[in-house]
Amino acid sequence: MIMSHQTFNTIIHARWLLTVESSEILQHHSVAIKDGQIAAISPTNETSDWAADEVITLDEHVLMPGLINLHGHSAMTLLRGYADDLQLMDWLHNHIWPAEGKHVDDAFVYEGSLIGMAEMIRSGTTTINDMYFYHRAVARAGAEAGMRTFVGCSILEFPTNYAQNADEYISKAMVEREEYLNNELITFTLAPHAPYTVSDETFKKITDIALKNDMLVHCHIHETMDEVNDSVRDHGKRPLARLNDIGFLENKLIAAHMVHLTDDEIALTASKNISIAHNPNSNMKLASGIAPIAQAMAAGVNVGIGTDGAASNNKLDMLNETRQAALLAKVGTLNPTDVPAFQAIQMATINGAKALHMVGKTGSIKVGKQADIIAINMAALETVPTFDVISHIVYAAGREHVTHTWVNGQCLMKQRQLLTLDETALKAMAKKWQTRIESSR
Amino acid sequence: MIMSHQTFNTIIHARWLLTVESSEILQHHSVAIKDGQIAAISPTNETSDWAADEVITLDEHVLMPGLINLHGHSAMTLLRGYADDLQLMDWLHNHIWPAEGKHVDDAFVYEGSLIGMAEMIRSGTTTINDMYFYHRAVARAGAEAGMRTFVGCSILEFPTNYAQNADEYISKAMVEREEYLNNELITFTLAPHAPYTVSDETFKKITDIALKNDMLVHCHIHETMDEVNDSVRDHGKRPLARLNDIGFLENKLIAAHMVHLTDDEIALTASKNISIAHNPNSNMKLASGIAPIAQAMAAGVNVGIGTDGAASNNKLDMLNETRQAALLAKVGTLNPTDVPAFQAIQMATINGAKALHMVGKTGSIKVGKQADIIAINMAALETVPTFDVISHIVYAAGREHVTHTWVNGQCLMKQRQLLTLDETALKAMAKKWQTRIESSR
Repeated sequence: MIMSHQTFNTIIHARWLLTVESSEILQHHSVAIKDGQIAAISPTNETSDWAADEVITLDEHVLMPGLINLHGHSAMTLLRGYADDLQLMDWLHNHIWPAEGKHVDDAFVYEGSLIGMAEMIRSGTTTINDMYFYHRAVARAGAEAGMRTFVGCSILEFPTNYAQNADEYISKAMVEREEYLNNELITFTLAPHAPYTVSDETFKKITDIALKNDMLVHCHIHETMDEVNDSVRDHGKRPLARLNDIGFLENKLIAAHMVHLTDDEIALTASKNISIAHNPNSNMKLASGIAPIAQAMAAGVNVGIGTDGAASNNKLDMLNETRQAALLAKVGTLNPTDVPAFQAIQMATINGAKALHMVGKTGSIKVGKQADIIAINMAALETVPTFDVISHIVYAAGREHVTHTWVNGQCLMKQRQLLTLDETALKAMAKKWQTRIESSR
Repeated sequence: MIMSHQTFNTIIHARWLLTVESSEILQHHSVAIKDGQIAAISPTNETSDWAADEVITLDEHVLMPGLINLHGHSAMTLLRGYADDLQLMDWLHNHIWPAEGKHVDDAFVYEGSLIGMAEMIRSGTTTINDMYFYHRAVARAGAEAGMRTFVGCSILEFPTNYAQNADEYISKAMVEREEYLNNELITFTLAPHAPYTVSDETFKKITDIALKNDMLVHCHIHETMDEVNDSVRDHGKRPLARLNDIGFLENKLIAAHMVHLTDDEIALTASKNISIAHNPNSNMKLASGIAPIAQAMAAGVNVGIGTDGAASNNKLDMLNETRQAALLAKVGTLNPTDVPAFQAIQMATINGAKALHMVGKTGSIKVGKQADIIAINMAALETVPTFDVISHIVYAAGREHVTHTWVNGQCLMKQRQLLTLDETALKAMAKKWQTRIESSR
């Protein structure tokens, strides 16, 4: 019998494989990558006819889908630790917004996004659903880093450095989007900032454009009790009801936060196929509250996980965020069986992919999907003994145990060394901005 | 003028120094260690007359007091990830206690404690307030690791591998304690397990012995709502009231958890000078609840931080625990100004020292105290820019950024390399126990 060799770009032999297609941990399995895609999955001892340009053996590691950061503001990494432990409105009005007003421009966003993306790659994130300004800069950073990047184009009624009014935010977004329509890694989304910063008219306009262009919509909703109460005062109804009345919930919508939800609102969220981007660390640090995510998932809502920006977290560490999602859910309901480890992993991977309407492309390890894959070392002092790899991914491993990150088949980090970005240069950029921001404080 | 040199064992020149004696961050300061003590602290540019056997320059680091883990079960590191996402009683009765019954002996405790201590040293912990069985084994591990170790001698009414009844637990503890009375690093404490496992008579006996021998007492109290409700059912009062009535609160008491407290109980805790060991990750993971630590500290209670055991956390990472203490307090009270970063650091250092009645010895960097010191790298990609070192210690840095750990002037970790313990041997031990535990499951 003549054996014909199958040739790939990369073969990864792993001690464990968690595809997330099921909760089964496969032992001694291999994944082959070709032209950016997952081309084959097989027990390692049945891969003798596989050949590739690069063969990587990870005999102490689990291979799993890359993490999907469903809500972030990458560029705000430059404001990490700039102001903490403050009331939300004090923090925003007296610290964050003035600093953004002085400094945010194309260079700030490009360099800040690169630093944030580097941090994300180093902690196993392969897709970022971003929301900020200067969209070309975010897109440029994503393309350079090699990350799957959803560029959320912020839209609000008041002026910033980037635009003067809602129409200008929208028109700039749509122009900048044109340049990236054919980039496989970069997708533009419309991102009305929040119910309290966007008018009914603008929400309607955004809905028209999004539906016409098949664009995703990304918005902060029900983040704080104040937001809900102010809406009742100003509009006679809660934000979600208002958004429903004006047709905004018909969008392919990713609602960030959704901390304060009644049972009826959870049912509405499920019926409208709205995905929630849950940000547990940010919700804790800003004291927004505990989002009822176990209840929402039980009601059929798709819930993913996001880090929010480094100014309110202050880590862009999806592994930590996944752990926090599980822990906060348990203490929120006082039920330790809520959000068990595998469900938390689904939230951080396949649920994110569903939210971004790219479940055919990423979010699990499956032949035909793009190769968005990470490896985590399970033989560190902090991850032994290893009774349960799934438990360890969520509860024991740290970002420092992520050794490899691939996006679209390209290796972005190998044995903790960044391959597409220059860590030393990024640190120098951070230092430059620190000096600039401090000197104008 | 003739300059006379001052000679030390170790000099550390640091970019930043946080003594915790105040919240001030000192720039370019140096610490000198002699005979295990902090012998001098000075601006680096005034240290030209200092000399030492070893001079360490940490020009991207902050030097701060070592972290004090105020509640843990080091040996349970061997059960990390053994069972998760379960109801507390299911977890204990059907998983943890049976595994302990099969495996816990002197070797399990010695090797498990070594692995746990290595993990703690690697994440900046210099003191562990432990509670377990086979006390000689814990003490031996602490002495070998070079950690400041409080060996909590568990006492309960029912039999375990270690002893058959309360009297035997107590007598064994007092005998084993004798061997370590002159060891500077090792202190034995009496650790009645919890109100639901210890009788009034035993609590009284422990109080007599502790007061007579000037021993600290360490006990799980008010961990779950069930514990409180069961006590009302069985004793007609809540555990703290019962313990007060029988005189147990007159001890130098460290109460672990204290999740469920009324305002009156907080006032009682303050008036009795009871210290709380707060375990936020364990309380979240086991869904015990949110301890009212901001309220307790406002009422004058001394609150430190503990990791609890690796079976319910599943990290022995005090840096992460400190972050979690700050975050959980904020979301618990819905006030983001509660437990700001510096207060969280105080909890993890000086408050722990107060709880252990050794504030004259450790918990801050001060001339005359023992040199229990750690260094954290503030120039990692995850800790830049660096506007606020105190914020970064709590919110941005990870355990992987802890580079050096000294206890009693001895360096236990240098540039992330363990010096007193053999990491490879510890991993092999973990693997051996994993095989043994799995094969008998």
